[in-house]
Amino acid sequence: MARVSQEHLDARRRQILDGAASCFARNGFHATSMQDVLKEVDLSAGAVYRYFSGKEELIAAIVTEVLDTVRGIFERAAQESPPPTPDVLIPRALARMREQRPATLEGGEWMFPRLMIQVWTETTRSPELAVVLGDGYRNVRTAWGEIVESYKDAGLMPADADADAMARTMIALVQGFAAQMALFGGISEQTLGDGLRALMSVGRAPADT
Amino acid sequence: MARVSQEHLDARRRQILDGAASCFARNGFHATSMQDVLKEVDLSAGAVYRYFSGKEELIAAIVTEVLDTVRGIFERAAQESPPPTPDVLIPRALARMREQRPATLEGGEWMFPRLMIQVWTETTRSPELAVVLGDGYRNVRTAWGEIVESYKDAGLMPADADADAMARTMIALVQGFAAQMALFGGISEQTLGDGLRALMSVGRAPADT
Repeated sequence: MARVSQEHLDARRRQILDGAASCFARNGFHATSMQDVLKEVDLSAGAVYRYFSGKEELIAAIVTEVLDTVRGIFERAAQESPPPTPDVLIPRALARMREQRPATLEGGEWMFPRLMIQVWTETTRSPELAVVLGDGYRNVRTAWGEIVESYKDAGLMPADADADAMARTMIALVQGFAAQMALFGGISEQTLGDGLRALMSVGRAPADT
Repeated sequence: MARVSQEHLDARRRQILDGAASCFARNGFHATSMQDVLKEVDLSAGAVYRYFSGKEELIAAIVTEVLDTVRGIFERAAQESPPPTPDVLIPRALARMREQRPATLEGGEWMFPRLMIQVWTETTRSPELAVVLGDGYRNVRTAWGEIVESYKDAGLMPADADADAMARTMIALVQGFAAQMALFGGISEQTLGDGLRALMSVGRAPADT
Protein backbone atom coordinates (compact mmCIF):
# COMPACT_ATOMS: atom_id res chain seq x y z
CA MET A 1 0.00 0.00 0.00
CA ALA A 2 1.33 3.40 -0.97
CA ARG A 3 2.37 5.75 1.81
CA VAL A 4 0.02 8.69 2.07
CA SER A 5 1.61 12.03 2.91
CA GLN A 6 0.39 14.16 5.80
CA GLU A 7 -0.22 16.90 3.29
CA HIS A 8 -2.58 14.65 1.38
CA LEU A 9 -4.41 13.64 4.57
CA ASP A 10 -4.81 17.28 5.59
CA ALA A 11 -6.09 18.27 2.15
CA ARG A 12 -8.62 15.45 2.19
CA ARG A 13 -9.80 16.42 5.68
CA ARG A 14 -10.16 20.04 4.51
CA GLN A 15 -12.15 18.93 1.46
CA ILE A 16 -14.56 16.92 3.63
CA LEU A 17 -15.04 19.71 6.17
CA ASP A 18 -15.68 22.31 3.45
CA GLY A 19 -18.15 20.07 1.65
CA ALA A 20 -20.02 19.26 4.85
CA ALA A 21 -20.11 22.96 5.79
CA SER A 22 -21.71 23.73 2.41
CA CYS A 23 -24.37 21.07 2.93
CA PHE A 24 -25.17 22.26 6.46
CA ALA A 25 -25.29 25.93 5.45
CA ARG A 26 -27.59 25.16 2.52
CA ASN A 27 -30.06 22.74 4.05
CA GLY A 28 -29.48 22.74 7.78
CA PHE A 29 -28.07 19.96 9.87
CA HIS A 30 -31.17 17.78 10.16
CA ALA A 31 -32.03 17.78 6.47
CA THR A 32 -28.45 16.81 5.54
CA SER A 33 -27.53 13.11 5.43
CA MET A 34 -24.05 11.58 5.31
CA GLN A 35 -25.03 10.53 1.77
CA ASP A 36 -25.44 14.21 0.88
CA VAL A 37 -21.97 14.93 2.26
CA LEU A 38 -20.40 12.01 0.31
CA LYS A 39 -22.05 13.28 -2.87
CA GLU A 40 -20.92 16.87 -2.23
CA VAL A 41 -17.26 15.91 -1.71
CA ASP A 42 -17.35 13.14 -4.34
CA LEU A 43 -15.65 10.58 -2.09
CA SER A 44 -16.51 7.04 -1.01
CA ALA A 45 -18.00 6.31 2.39
CA GLY A 46 -14.77 4.54 3.36
CA ALA A 47 -12.70 7.63 2.53
CA VAL A 48 -14.92 9.92 4.58
CA TYR A 49 -15.50 7.65 7.59
CA ARG A 50 -11.75 7.28 7.92
CA TYR A 51 -11.78 10.89 9.13
CA PHE A 52 -15.19 11.42 10.72
CA SER A 53 -17.59 9.00 12.40
CA GLY A 54 -20.67 10.93 11.29
CA LYS A 55 -22.52 14.24 11.10
CA GLU A 56 -22.05 15.06 14.78
CA GLU A 57 -18.28 14.75 14.52
CA LEU A 58 -18.26 16.78 11.31
CA ILE A 59 -20.18 19.68 12.75
CA ALA A 60 -18.14 19.63 15.98
CA ALA A 61 -14.92 19.78 13.90
CA ILE A 62 -16.25 22.67 11.79
CA VAL A 63 -17.32 24.66 14.86
CA THR A 64 -14.04 24.02 16.69
CA GLU A 65 -12.00 25.11 13.70
CA VAL A 66 -14.01 28.30 13.14
CA LEU A 67 -13.88 29.30 16.79
CA ASP A 68 -10.14 28.61 16.95
CA THR A 69 -9.68 30.92 13.97
CA VAL A 70 -11.76 33.65 15.61
CA ARG A 71 -9.84 33.27 18.85
CA GLY A 72 -6.53 33.50 16.99
CA ILE A 73 -7.57 36.75 15.31
CA PHE A 74 -8.45 38.36 18.64
CA GLU A 75 -5.43 36.93 20.49
CA ARG A 76 -3.12 38.49 17.92
CA ALA A 77 -4.98 41.80 18.25
CA ALA A 78 -4.52 41.71 22.03
CA GLN A 79 -0.75 41.68 21.50
CA GLU A 80 -0.73 44.92 19.52
CA SER A 81 -0.11 47.91 21.74
CA PRO A 82 -2.61 49.35 21.80
CA PRO A 83 -4.97 47.00 19.93
CA PRO A 84 -7.07 48.64 17.20
CA THR A 85 -10.29 50.14 18.60
CA PRO A 86 -13.45 48.03 18.08
CA ASP A 87 -14.66 50.04 15.07
CA VAL A 88 -11.45 48.99 13.28
CA LEU A 89 -10.87 45.58 14.86
CA ILE A 90 -14.30 44.02 14.34
CA PRO A 91 -14.61 44.78 10.61
CA ARG A 92 -11.02 43.56 10.22
CA ALA A 93 -11.83 40.30 12.01
CA LEU A 94 -14.85 39.73 9.78
CA ALA A 95 -12.80 40.49 6.66
CA ARG A 96 -10.18 37.97 7.81
CA MET A 97 -12.88 35.33 8.36
CA ARG A 98 -14.11 35.98 4.84
CA GLU A 99 -10.56 35.52 3.49
CA GLN A 100 -10.09 32.28 5.39
CA ARG A 101 -13.56 30.82 4.72
CA PRO A 102 -14.48 32.38 1.37
CA ALA A 103 -16.98 29.72 0.26
CA THR A 104 -20.23 31.06 -1.17
CA LEU A 105 -23.68 29.59 -1.67
CA GLU A 106 -25.26 29.18 -5.12
CA GLY A 107 -26.52 32.78 -5.15
CA GLY A 108 -23.04 34.17 -4.43
CA GLU A 109 -23.90 34.85 -0.79
CA TRP A 110 -21.08 34.29 1.73
CA MET A 111 -21.70 30.86 3.22
CA PHE A 112 -20.32 31.42 6.67
CA PRO A 113 -23.12 33.51 8.27
CA ARG A 114 -25.72 31.01 7.09
CA LEU A 115 -23.70 28.18 8.61
CA MET A 116 -23.57 30.06 11.93
CA ILE A 117 -27.35 30.25 12.16
CA GLN A 118 -27.72 26.57 11.38
CA VAL A 119 -25.15 25.72 14.05
CA TRP A 120 -27.02 27.78 16.63
CA THR A 121 -30.29 26.02 15.98
CA GLU A 122 -28.60 22.64 16.16
CA THR A 123 -26.84 23.65 19.39
CA THR A 124 -30.21 24.12 21.12
CA ARG A 125 -30.91 20.44 20.35
CA SER A 126 -27.52 18.84 20.94
CA PRO A 127 -25.87 18.81 24.39
CA GLU A 128 -22.57 17.66 22.78
CA LEU A 129 -22.51 20.58 20.39
CA ALA A 130 -23.49 22.93 23.22
CA VAL A 131 -20.28 21.87 25.02
CA VAL A 132 -18.14 22.53 21.93
CA LEU A 133 -19.75 25.92 21.32
CA GLY A 134 -19.57 26.82 25.01
CA ASP A 135 -15.82 26.09 25.11
CA GLY A 136 -15.22 28.18 22.00
CA TYR A 137 -17.31 31.03 23.38
CA ARG A 138 -15.31 31.04 26.60
CA ASN A 139 -12.04 31.16 24.65
CA VAL A 140 -13.17 34.09 22.52
CA ARG A 141 -14.42 35.87 25.65
CA THR A 142 -11.00 35.39 27.26
CA ALA A 143 -9.23 36.76 24.19
CA TRP A 144 -11.54 39.79 24.20
CA GLY A 145 -10.91 40.25 27.91
CA GLU A 146 -7.19 40.57 27.09
CA ILE A 147 -7.92 43.17 24.43
CA VAL A 148 -9.90 45.19 26.96
CA GLU A 149 -7.00 45.00 29.43
CA SER A 150 -4.69 46.27 26.68
CA TYR A 151 -7.07 49.18 26.03
CA LYS A 152 -6.96 49.97 29.74
CA ASP A 153 -3.15 49.73 29.86
CA ALA A 154 -2.99 52.16 26.94
CA GLY A 155 -5.29 54.61 28.74
CA LEU A 156 -8.04 54.08 26.13
CA MET A 157 -10.61 52.95 28.71
CA PRO A 158 -11.25 53.64 32.38
CA ALA A 159 -9.74 51.00 34.67
CA ASP A 160 -13.09 50.10 36.20
CA ALA A 161 -14.89 49.29 32.92
CA ASP A 162 -16.42 45.79 32.96
CA ALA A 163 -14.07 43.76 30.72
CA ASP A 164 -16.20 40.60 30.55
CA ALA A 165 -19.42 42.50 29.82
CA MET A 166 -17.57 44.33 27.06
CA ALA A 167 -16.25 41.00 25.72
CA ARG A 168 -19.78 39.58 25.56
CA THR A 169 -21.05 42.75 23.92
CA MET A 170 -18.35 42.58 21.24
CA ILE A 171 -19.20 38.93 20.56
CA ALA A 172 -22.91 39.78 20.41
CA LEU A 173 -22.17 42.42 17.77
CA VAL A 174 -20.44 39.92 15.51
CA GLN A 175 -23.14 37.30 16.07
CA GLY A 176 -25.95 39.74 15.34
CA PHE A 177 -24.19 41.11 12.32
CA ALA A 178 -23.74 37.59 10.96
CA ALA A 179 -27.45 37.00 11.54
CA GLN A 180 -28.30 40.09 9.49
CA MET A 181 -25.93 38.97 6.73
CA ALA A 182 -27.57 35.55 6.61
CA LEU A 183 -31.12 36.89 6.80
CA PHE A 184 -31.08 40.07 4.75
CA GLY A 185 -27.76 40.24 2.86
CA GLY A 186 -26.60 43.54 1.40
CA ILE A 187 -24.55 44.54 4.44
CA SER A 188 -20.79 44.95 4.49
CA GLU A 189 -18.19 44.85 7.25
CA GLN A 190 -17.78 48.57 6.68
CA THR A 191 -21.36 49.17 7.83
CA LEU A 192 -20.52 47.61 11.16
CA GLY A 193 -17.39 49.77 11.43
CA ASP A 194 -19.39 52.93 10.66
CA GLY A 195 -22.10 51.90 13.10
CA LEU A 196 -19.59 51.22 15.86
CA ARG A 197 -17.93 54.58 15.28
CA ALA A 198 -21.34 56.26 15.51
CA LEU A 199 -22.20 54.35 18.70
CA MET A 200 -18.85 55.20 20.28
CA SER A 201 -19.50 58.89 19.59
CA VAL A 202 -22.72 59.01 21.66
CA GLY A 203 -22.46 61.30 24.64
CA ARG A 204 -19.13 62.86 23.74
CA ALA A 205 -19.06 66.59 23.82
CA PRO A 206 -19.18 67.78 20.17
CA ALA A 207 -15.70 69.25 20.64
CA ASP A 208 -14.37 65.72 21.20
CA THR A 209 -15.59 64.28 17.94
CA MET B 1 -75.69 30.29 18.41
CA ALA B 2 -74.29 32.43 21.20
CA ARG B 3 -72.65 35.71 20.26
CA VAL B 4 -68.92 35.58 20.87
CA SER B 5 -67.35 38.76 22.21
CA GLN B 6 -64.34 40.37 20.57
CA GLU B 7 -62.57 39.98 23.88
CA HIS B 8 -63.11 36.23 23.75
CA LEU B 9 -61.86 36.05 20.15
CA ASP B 10 -58.74 38.04 21.05
CA ALA B 11 -58.02 35.86 24.08
CA ARG B 12 -58.40 32.71 22.00
CA ARG B 13 -56.07 34.09 19.31
CA ARG B 14 -53.53 35.01 22.02
CA GLN B 15 -53.77 31.49 23.49
CA ILE B 16 -53.10 29.89 20.10
CA LEU B 17 -50.17 32.18 19.28
CA ASP B 18 -48.54 31.61 22.68
CA GLY B 19 -48.97 27.84 22.45
CA ALA B 20 -47.55 27.75 18.93
CA ALA B 21 -44.61 29.93 19.99
CA SER B 22 -43.81 27.46 22.78
CA CYS B 23 -43.87 24.53 20.37
CA PHE B 24 -41.64 26.30 17.83
CA ALA B 25 -39.18 27.48 20.50
CA ARG B 26 -38.93 23.99 21.98
CA ASN B 27 -38.66 21.84 18.89
CA GLY B 28 -38.13 24.12 15.94
CA PHE B 29 -40.54 24.85 13.15
CA HIS B 30 -40.01 21.72 11.05
CA ALA B 31 -40.34 19.25 13.89
CA THR B 32 -43.61 20.88 15.06
CA SER B 33 -46.89 19.70 13.51
CA MET B 34 -50.29 21.39 13.70
CA GLN B 35 -51.28 18.38 15.86
CA ASP B 36 -48.58 19.43 18.36
CA VAL B 37 -50.01 22.95 18.40
CA LEU B 38 -53.59 21.67 18.94
CA LYS B 39 -52.40 19.51 21.82
CA GLU B 40 -50.40 22.37 23.36
CA VAL B 41 -53.33 24.79 23.33
CA ASP B 42 -55.92 22.08 24.09
CA LEU B 43 -58.33 23.18 21.37
CA SER B 44 -60.03 21.41 18.49
CA ALA B 45 -58.75 21.70 14.94
CA GLY B 46 -61.89 23.65 14.04
CA ALA B 47 -61.25 26.19 16.78
CA VAL B 48 -57.63 26.76 15.68
CA TYR B 49 -58.14 26.76 11.90
CA ARG B 50 -60.81 29.41 12.38
CA TYR B 51 -57.90 31.75 13.16
CA PHE B 52 -54.88 30.39 11.28
CA SER B 53 -54.64 28.34 8.09
CA GLY B 54 -51.49 26.50 9.23
CA LYS B 55 -47.98 26.67 10.62
CA GLU B 56 -46.80 29.27 8.10
CA GLU B 57 -49.57 31.68 9.07
CA LEU B 58 -48.89 31.07 12.76
CA ILE B 59 -45.20 31.82 12.56
CA ALA B 60 -45.79 34.87 10.36
CA ALA B 61 -48.30 36.20 12.92
CA ILE B 62 -45.88 35.60 15.80
CA VAL B 63 -43.01 37.33 14.02
CA THR B 64 -45.16 40.30 12.97
CA GLU B 65 -46.45 40.78 16.51
CA VAL B 66 -42.98 40.59 18.08
CA LEU B 67 -41.45 43.02 15.60
CA ASP B 68 -44.36 45.44 16.04
CA THR B 69 -43.73 45.38 19.79
CA VAL B 70 -40.00 46.04 19.30
CA ARG B 71 -40.73 48.87 16.90
CA GLY B 72 -43.21 50.40 19.37
CA ILE B 73 -40.60 50.38 22.13
CA PHE B 74 -38.06 52.21 19.98
CA GLU B 75 -40.61 54.62 18.46
CA ARG B 76 -41.64 55.72 21.94
CA ALA B 77 -37.98 56.14 22.89
CA ALA B 78 -37.42 58.35 19.82
CA GLN B 79 -40.05 60.76 21.17
CA GLU B 80 -38.22 61.34 24.45
CA SER B 81 -35.91 64.33 24.28
CA PRO B 82 -33.25 63.28 24.37
CA PRO B 83 -33.84 59.52 24.14
CA PRO B 84 -31.96 57.41 26.71
CA THR B 85 -28.45 56.55 25.52
CA PRO B 86 -28.01 53.00 24.10
CA ASP B 87 -26.51 51.58 27.31
CA VAL B 88 -29.80 52.47 29.05
CA LEU B 89 -32.24 52.05 26.17
CA ILE B 90 -31.25 48.57 24.95
CA PRO B 91 -31.40 46.84 28.35
CA ARG B 92 -34.72 48.61 28.94
CA ALA B 93 -36.10 47.38 25.61
CA LEU B 94 -35.06 43.82 26.44
CA ALA B 95 -36.63 44.06 29.90
CA ARG B 96 -39.86 45.30 28.32
CA MET B 97 -39.85 42.38 25.87
CA ARG B 98 -39.43 40.04 28.81
CA GLU B 99 -42.43 41.66 30.56
CA GLN B 100 -44.59 41.41 27.47
CA ARG B 101 -43.52 37.88 26.44
CA PRO B 102 -42.63 36.28 29.78
CA ALA B 103 -43.18 32.64 28.74
CA THR B 104 -40.43 30.25 29.81
CA LEU B 105 -39.35 26.82 28.64
CA GLU B 106 -39.45 23.78 30.92
CA GLY B 107 -36.04 24.57 32.43
CA GLY B 108 -37.17 28.09 33.40
CA GLU B 109 -35.21 29.65 30.51
CA TRP B 110 -36.84 32.67 28.83
CA MET B 111 -38.53 31.32 25.72
CA PHE B 112 -38.19 34.31 23.47
CA PRO B 113 -34.48 34.13 22.52
CA ARG B 114 -34.84 30.46 21.60
CA LEU B 115 -37.82 31.31 19.42
CA MET B 116 -35.77 33.99 17.63
CA ILE B 117 -33.09 31.50 16.62
CA GLN B 118 -35.68 29.05 15.31
CA VAL B 119 -37.32 31.84 13.30
CA TRP B 120 -33.98 32.79 11.73
CA THR B 121 -33.26 29.26 10.59
CA GLU B 122 -36.74 28.95 9.17
CA THR B 123 -36.38 32.31 7.43
CA THR B 124 -33.43 31.02 5.41
CA ARG B 125 -35.80 28.35 4.03
CA SER B 126 -39.00 30.31 3.54
CA PRO B 127 -39.26 33.22 1.09
CA GLU B 128 -42.64 34.21 2.64
CA LEU B 129 -41.17 34.45 6.12
CA ALA B 130 -38.16 36.32 4.72
CA VAL B 131 -40.57 39.01 3.47
CA VAL B 132 -42.26 39.29 6.89
CA LEU B 133 -38.93 39.47 8.71
CA GLY B 134 -37.50 41.90 6.15
CA ASP B 135 -40.45 44.28 6.62
CA GLY B 136 -40.10 44.14 10.39
CA TYR B 137 -36.35 44.73 10.19
CA ARG B 138 -36.88 47.80 8.01
CA ASN B 139 -39.41 49.20 10.48
CA VAL B 140 -37.08 48.74 13.45
CA ARG B 141 -34.23 50.29 11.45
CA THR B 142 -36.43 53.30 10.73
CA ALA B 143 -37.35 53.67 14.40
CA TRP B 144 -33.67 53.50 15.36
CA GLY B 145 -32.84 56.04 12.68
CA GLU B 146 -35.25 58.44 14.41
CA ILE B 147 -33.56 57.84 17.76
CA VAL B 148 -30.19 58.67 16.19
CA GLU B 149 -31.64 61.90 14.77
CA SER B 150 -32.91 62.76 18.26
CA TYR B 151 -29.42 62.15 19.67
CA LYS B 152 -28.03 64.48 17.05
CA ASP B 153 -30.65 67.15 17.77
CA ALA B 154 -29.72 66.96 21.46
CA GLY B 155 -26.03 67.39 20.63
CA LEU B 156 -25.25 63.87 21.83
CA MET B 157 -23.77 62.78 18.51
CA PRO B 158 -21.94 64.50 15.66
CA ALA B 159 -24.27 65.48 12.81
CA ASP B 160 -22.35 63.43 10.24
CA ALA B 161 -22.56 60.08 12.12
CA ASP B 162 -24.05 57.33 9.93
CA ALA B 163 -27.58 56.89 11.34
CA ASP B 164 -28.51 53.77 9.36
CA ALA B 165 -25.22 52.01 10.13
CA MET B 166 -25.78 52.81 13.79
CA ALA B 167 -29.35 51.47 13.55
CA ARG B 168 -28.10 48.19 12.10
CA THR B 169 -25.39 47.98 14.74
CA MET B 170 -27.95 48.46 17.54
CA ILE B 171 -30.16 45.76 16.05
CA ALA B 172 -27.14 43.43 15.70
CA LEU B 173 -26.40 43.91 19.39
CA VAL B 174 -29.87 42.80 20.42
CA GLN B 175 -29.84 39.90 17.97
CA GLY B 176 -26.44 38.68 19.12
CA PHE B 177 -27.34 39.07 22.74
CA ALA B 178 -30.49 37.02 22.21
CA ALA B 179 -28.34 34.36 20.51
CA GLN B 180 -26.07 34.23 23.57
CA MET B 181 -29.09 33.97 25.87
CA ALA B 182 -30.50 31.09 23.84
CA LEU B 183 -27.17 29.29 23.49
CA PHE B 184 -25.41 29.84 26.80
CA GLY B 185 -27.92 31.34 29.26
CA GLY B 186 -26.70 33.02 32.43
CA ILE B 187 -26.56 36.49 30.91
CA SER B 188 -28.73 39.41 32.00
CA GLU B 189 -29.83 42.62 30.30
CA GLN B 190 -27.59 44.41 32.77
CA THR B 191 -24.52 42.72 31.25
CA LEU B 192 -25.37 44.26 27.90
CA GLY B 193 -25.82 47.67 29.54
CA ASP B 194 -22.43 47.38 31.28
CA GLY B 195 -20.80 46.17 28.08
CA LEU B 196 -22.25 49.03 26.06
CA ARG B 197 -21.08 51.54 28.65
CA ALA B 198 -17.59 50.03 28.47
CA LEU B 199 -17.62 50.12 24.65
CA MET B 200 -18.81 53.72 24.60
CA SER B 201 -15.90 54.69 26.88
CA VAL B 202 -13.21 53.48 24.44
CA GLY B 203 -10.99 56.27 23.21
CA ARG B 204 -12.31 58.93 25.54
CA ALA B 205 -9.64 60.83 27.42
CA PRO B 206 -9.63 59.43 31.00
CA ALA B 207 -10.72 62.85 32.26
CA ASP B 208 -13.99 62.43 30.33
CA THR B 209 -15.05 59.22 31.98
